Amino acid sequence: MVELRPITEDNFFDAFHLSLAPGQEEFVSHPVRSLAQAYVNRNQCQPFGIYADGKMVGYVMVIYDYDVPEYDIWHMMIDKSEQGRGYGKEALDRVLEYIAIKPFGGSDRVALTCNKRNPAARNLYESRGFRATGAEDGDEIELAMTLGPRETED
Amino acid sequence: MVELRPITEDNFFDAFHLSLAPGQEEFVSHPVRSLAQAYVNRNQCQPFGIYADGKMVGYVMVIYDYDVPEYDIWHMMIDKSEQGRGYGKEALDRVLEYIAIKPFGGSDRVALTCNKRNPAARNLYESRGFRATGAEDGDEIELAMTLGPRETED
Repeated sequence: MVELRPITEDNFFDAFHLSLAPGQEEFVSHPVRSLAQAYVNRNQCQPFGIYADGKMVGYVMVIYDYDVPEYDIWHMMIDKSEQGRGYGKEALDRVLEYIAIKPFGGSDRVALTCNKRNPAARNLYESRGFRATGAEDGDEIELAMTLGPRETED
Repeated sequence: MVELRPITEDNFFDAFHLSLAPGQEEFVSHPVRSLAQAYVNRNQCQPFGIYADGKMVGYVMVIYDYDVPEYDIWHMMIDKSEQGRGYGKEALDRVLEYIAIKPFGGSDRVALTCNKRNPAARNLYESRGFRATGAEDGDEIELAMTLGPRETED
């Protein structure tokens, strides 16, 4: 059972203590650095702790790019001691559910970047419907998807 | 000529690149970590770049503690390549001028903490009127001052 909880003064220190696995530092920013970026983008983003069974196991930030416009997923990571349990997939589902609420603006487009040399992350994103757009920046490729109409219950 | 400029998306990357001198890492948080704390305290703090001749040479954060109430000075640092030029003293003067405007609340009390093994910092703060309050937390001692009435021009 994976859930997202906003980063606040009550849990930010747990985010400081999350660890990237060796070799992953080059692919994703540490949550401390991400939260510093959250400060300067504070009116258009929402950083979350990823929780499993009440414990913070990872981190992700959702930011709205008003210029495109689109929702961007930044800096998603699972602590090195908590990887391989499917938390990334569940967290991504929660992130897409959050974005479907359209907390900042009405765009249906969701985008992120992924390092070319990080196939595990790319497979995760593609399993949830993201596709390469062809845009690249150095080793980073852009993946994007369009949110479908929200399902309604009869 | 030292001035303070708010940290924004235009200059935060310069703050990421500031460097503490060897041995100072144990005394003060790096600006990246400070900005992460600024995110969770975003309604009661103001982080600044310290500029000399238009170049960012250091960092400082002012935060209002509504519980005391008081203004706190956090994480003031001068880049290792820019130390020894009096920028710390001038920056502290600018910080006290900023606090005198009372940007968050009406308290006249200004406090900070300083490591016992960092006499250079303590001398700087005492030269500007800060005095030890007797409060300690491990190796950190609290220094405080009370702002005087604002000078008015005739």
